[in-house]
Amino acid sequence: MTSDRPDTPLLDTIHRPADMKQLSDRQLTQLAHELRSETVSAVSVTGGHLGAGLGVVELTVALHAVFDTPRDKIIWDVGHQCYPHKILTERRDRIRTLRMKDGLSGFTKRSESPYDPFGAAHSSTSISAALGFAVARDLGGVVPEGLGDAVAVIGDGSMSAGMAYEAMNNAGHLKKRLIVILNDNDMSIAPPVGAMSTYLSRLYAEEPFQDFKAAAKGAVSLLPEPFREGAKRAKDILKGMAVGGTLFEQLGFSYLGPIDGHDMDQLLPVLRTVKARATGPILIHVLTKKGKGYEPAETARDKGHATAKFDVITGEQKKAPSNAPSYTRVFADSLLQEAAEDDKICAITAAMPDGTGLNLFAERYPSRCFDVGIAEQHGVTFSAGLAAGGMKPFCALYSTFLQRGYDQVVHDVAIQRLPVRFAIDRAGLVGADGATHAGAFDIAYLANLPGFVVMAAADEAELKHMVATAAAHDEGPIAFRFPRGEGQGVEMPERGTPLEIGKGRIISKGARVAILSFGTRLAEVAKAAEALSARGITPTVADARFAKPLDRDMILTLAADHEALITIEEGAVGGFGSHVAQLLAEEGVFDSGLKYRSMVLPDIFIDQASPADMYAVAGMNAADIESKVLGVLGVAQIGEARA
Amino acid sequence: MTSDRPDTPLLDTIHRPADMKQLSDRQLTQLAHELRSETVSAVSVTGGHLGAGLGVVELTVALHAVFDTPRDKIIWDVGHQCYPHKILTERRDRIRTLRMKDGLSGFTKRSESPYDPFGAAHSSTSISAALGFAVARDLGGVVPEGLGDAVAVIGDGSMSAGMAYEAMNNAGHLKKRLIVILNDNDMSIAPPVGAMSTYLSRLYAEEPFQDFKAAAKGAVSLLPEPFREGAKRAKDILKGMAVGGTLFEQLGFSYLGPIDGHDMDQLLPVLRTVKARATGPILIHVLTKKGKGYEPAETARDKGHATAKFDVITGEQKKAPSNAPSYTRVFADSLLQEAAEDDKICAITAAMPDGTGLNLFAERYPSRCFDVGIAEQHGVTFSAGLAAGGMKPFCALYSTFLQRGYDQVVHDVAIQRLPVRFAIDRAGLVGADGATHAGAFDIAYLANLPGFVVMAAADEAELKHMVATAAAHDEGPIAFRFPRGEGQGVEMPERGTPLEIGKGRIISKGARVAILSFGTRLAEVAKAAEALSARGITPTVADARFAKPLDRDMILTLAADHEALITIEEGAVGGFGSHVAQLLAEEGVFDSGLKYRSMVLPDIFIDQASPADMYAVAGMNAADIESKVLGVLGVAQIGEARA
Repeated sequence: MTSDRPDTPLLDTIHRPADMKQLSDRQLTQLAHELRSETVSAVSVTGGHLGAGLGVVELTVALHAVFDTPRDKIIWDVGHQCYPHKILTERRDRIRTLRMKDGLSGFTKRSESPYDPFGAAHSSTSISAALGFAVARDLGGVVPEGLGDAVAVIGDGSMSAGMAYEAMNNAGHLKKRLIVILNDNDMSIAPPVGAMSTYLSRLYAEEPFQDFKAAAKGAVSLLPEPFREGAKRAKDILKGMAVGGTLFEQLGFSYLGPIDGHDMDQLLPVLRTVKARATGPILIHVLTKKGKGYEPAETARDKGHATAKFDVITGEQKKAPSNAPSYTRVFADSLLQEAAEDDKICAITAAMPDGTGLNLFAERYPSRCFDVGIAEQHGVTFSAGLAAGGMKPFCALYSTFLQRGYDQVVHDVAIQRLPVRFAIDRAGLVGADGATHAGAFDIAYLANLPGFVVMAAADEAELKHMVATAAAHDEGPIAFRFPRGEGQGVEMPERGTPLEIGKGRIISKGARVAILSFGTRLAEVAKAAEALSARGITPTVADARFAKPLDRDMILTLAADHEALITIEEGAVGGFGSHVAQLLAEEGVFDSGLKYRSMVLPDIFIDQASPADMYAVAGMNAADIESKVLGVLGVAQIGEARA
Repeated sequence: MTSDRPDTPLLDTIHRPADMKQLSDRQLTQLAHELRSETVSAVSVTGGHLGAGLGVVELTVALHAVFDTPRDKIIWDVGHQCYPHKILTERRDRIRTLRMKDGLSGFTKRSESPYDPFGAAHSSTSISAALGFAVARDLGGVVPEGLGDAVAVIGDGSMSAGMAYEAMNNAGHLKKRLIVILNDNDMSIAPPVGAMSTYLSRLYAEEPFQDFKAAAKGAVSLLPEPFREGAKRAKDILKGMAVGGTLFEQLGFSYLGPIDGHDMDQLLPVLRTVKARATGPILIHVLTKKGKGYEPAETARDKGHATAKFDVITGEQKKAPSNAPSYTRVFADSLLQEAAEDDKICAITAAMPDGTGLNLFAERYPSRCFDVGIAEQHGVTFSAGLAAGGMKPFCALYSTFLQRGYDQVVHDVAIQRLPVRFAIDRAGLVGADGATHAGAFDIAYLANLPGFVVMAAADEAELKHMVATAAAHDEGPIAFRFPRGEGQGVEMPERGTPLEIGKGRIISKGARVAILSFGTRLAEVAKAAEALSARGITPTVADARFAKPLDRDMILTLAADHEALITIEEGAVGGFGSHVAQLLAEEGVFDSGLKYRSMVLPDIFIDQASPADMYAVAGMNAADIESKVLGVLGVAQIGEARA
């Protein structure tokens, strides 16, 4: 690897997958080599998901060589691994814009390319989607590119999600031709957990290789014409040597594998045979190495899962220095403090120990920390069971992933008023991960649940207090949300102090207009207030802290004492501002006039960009707040005033 | 069976499970017999879920005889089968109040009894909850009744849900002592579907019984002391004769079974041995018959799943005559009409073909109708895949169950703007099924998704038009909600006509106050309007039809032309009314005063009762609307006026 653009003579001739049809198998191997270099080079410039893509370089080449995309639909589960695919599918010219504003998405995306038949960024959706395409094909569905084979490529980590099982259960029943490639790299984002992972390890460790008894089943009907030399392993597999009574077969799939996902001499004949002969659902078990072929990734603890920009030679990442601890870290440290004094506190993560900061908890209190796998539904109800058993569970999930456990939040937690503590990370806009990872809906979908307490931290010190509040609150469910990224750099208390439930705080007193913030937009509100003060309008600034229960007294007083009241939250309509409006309406505050406005995320899915750019799109920066205040008060706008 | 109270001399002596400890095995068999009679008698009076309870009468007796409840936690999945359990656990005196206002819940409920350690009404939560209890026990969790064994009883139908798989995957990994009883009656609500179901049938059809090779595994360590005569089957099982390399063992469970769940001579020794010797997670596969022992249930197509009050002798149900078709039926018939003219229309149900009316679709168009099992996550994304493949999928779910697929609605449907049609049945309050089945949150959690169209039908004719609207709308996702029960009896058009997206309708013009309804409360609004007119106040009445996109022009005109505007919807805060308030705020309508009110479901979970009683609790009847109008206008209230 060199740090300049790599030398890629063969790749340079490939503009779309159709161009690969003329290549020999040896050339395809060479193409994979060049594709790997190009991927490393691109991600060194953009940052992003590196390890997953490197692990599937050969698989990507083999799939596009054997299948006819975009007529055949390749659906990459989660999408972390799609950069090599993007390079081969007419997007190489933009590959160094990955995850940037107006650039390529870091995930597959339907609106970006016909080669992305189904977008993904959350895990374990690919088999369901592929089954949809397969059924649509057989029912005569019409799409511009045509409908051929449906191929889901799913990692072993994604297999811990119930959704993947539901899809296999349905596919095994429907018996449509459907191809699932299990990309088994023994490592999703964190090392995989759960019995399925252990089972997969056993599949290639021992019995199946010796198990000849099932030779008559499934795969044997797929036996191809004689192979060229060097593909003995593939031949053996296709003869059924490695076919056993696997869990997948019990669910109605033919099972082929495991095969070496970095050996084109295994991949190509197996895929060609499957393409030529498959009838019903078939699962091809492919072993790969995350980070394969780039030493800094191969040797990293997370196998180069996600990386900042880096130096290609050394692998050293170029991270901007940080001024404050991340919210995630503050949450994790605060929880450790609480757990040190209360042995009933335990922690639950759904395959994100690092992302949620619970890796620290797992080190210190391994018996009280549970990584349930990519299994939010189970994770929430497991937490409810722990709470019913007298424990104090902190269920730590990203806002967007909590959506996966919503029914469990309603049915198992809220209706039973069980004291599960939800630590909701990545609430609000998230930057480079874009719309699929934004946490826009949690305020709305939690604050309307009876008995729930819903908090948002205005800064990292507040977060610490909210962790303490949640630890102390044993009367029912409680949630606190906080954003991605660094704190505000505020002074940190040594310990968190439980807040009074349902009480907000006045930050500064002013006149005419009150700005009531829920969450971290408070810093921008403060900036706006300063700018407004300079213009002779000093707003009152308040931090609601709670979307539920509302601080009725504070809100009604703010409304009574000001000409205008503006709420702001980093969430979609239906949340905090809507609860405030409901209170004001029911109390008759609107009857005699109140200049009320509610600043919420706009009604669009905001594409990836820097956080600052995303806030600009959302209209959530200090200037937007200032402008909103001036507009409400009927004062000439900034632009107008300057004009 | 007799139609009078059955003769139950032994059951009459059992006031709590502890009383059963003195009984011989023969007496326990007798107790089961009496318990069955009592269950039939009770449900004949109350109506409710009959078949499931009858199928587990022996299992219920055996579990309470062997385990020490409430210290040991028995967690009944879904809760349909819990009536015999309630009779044995200090609730026999109230068993004839099942599903009635202020009576016993038709499901397990923590607030009702310490013998219900975890409430359920949605499927497939039991293993997660039981694992929570097991872990809490091992971590020293403290609850009043103590923490002993955790026993989940889950049906084969519930096993199609990914959540059950997620829980097993986690349990197999954690290796805690945990008991799962797979109650395999080959029939959940509808006949089960999916590859897992086929697999379970195979488990007791052939190989496992002949498979001795695994005798050394798992269950053999549980081998008990010599049995008394007559329990040879149990003995064989515990020797491992029936133990094979099952899917459950692959997930880390010991597997015992299958055993006859109606034979106490098998149930008791197996459960006693498990209680005495189990170490890690163990699954006991029990075969039962839904409706067992009551012929009208055994021979019914749905095995007596849910029944109205009935005559015990004949089994004949006493249903009130209906005046109008059910909304469900109108939906189903309307969809059939559309499907007859458009072969791209297909339908998806998650194990509720009868409940959603799609059984009719499945008969007429079997290749276009998909029952995916209890698998809402997959069902939604499978629908998204079908839509991406050029089909027009109608995904028919109850509002409360759509919560299970919320992330898929956001991530796979909304972000990709795929034209999935959501037919949301049981929206709003549902009567006897109570809080767990209420559809209170869907307006809020759908209407804030960018690009979604969200409709609610004011009556059955409107529903027909909305089915046509959804069929015609191919630009993105669209949802229409409708309630449980019968329509209003309005005249039905022969065919549905697509509505203009985002346009409401004025029902009647009045003055001073406008009432803007979203959904079926329109009929009560009309009644209230009539009563108000008699008092000299004639409100304008409007039907919003759309919560998204809002009919901005109509709403702003209503606001401008009236002193007061009141919205009403059968949903929690955050939904239609909140979107209206946001519009009014942003347009500055509140600035100069508008008497705005938003009638939403109250911030409580409303227990089971008749629909009328529930609406009274919710404050959603005509009298409530009338009262709201008078209050807003400052007119003396009804009660005051009469006083």
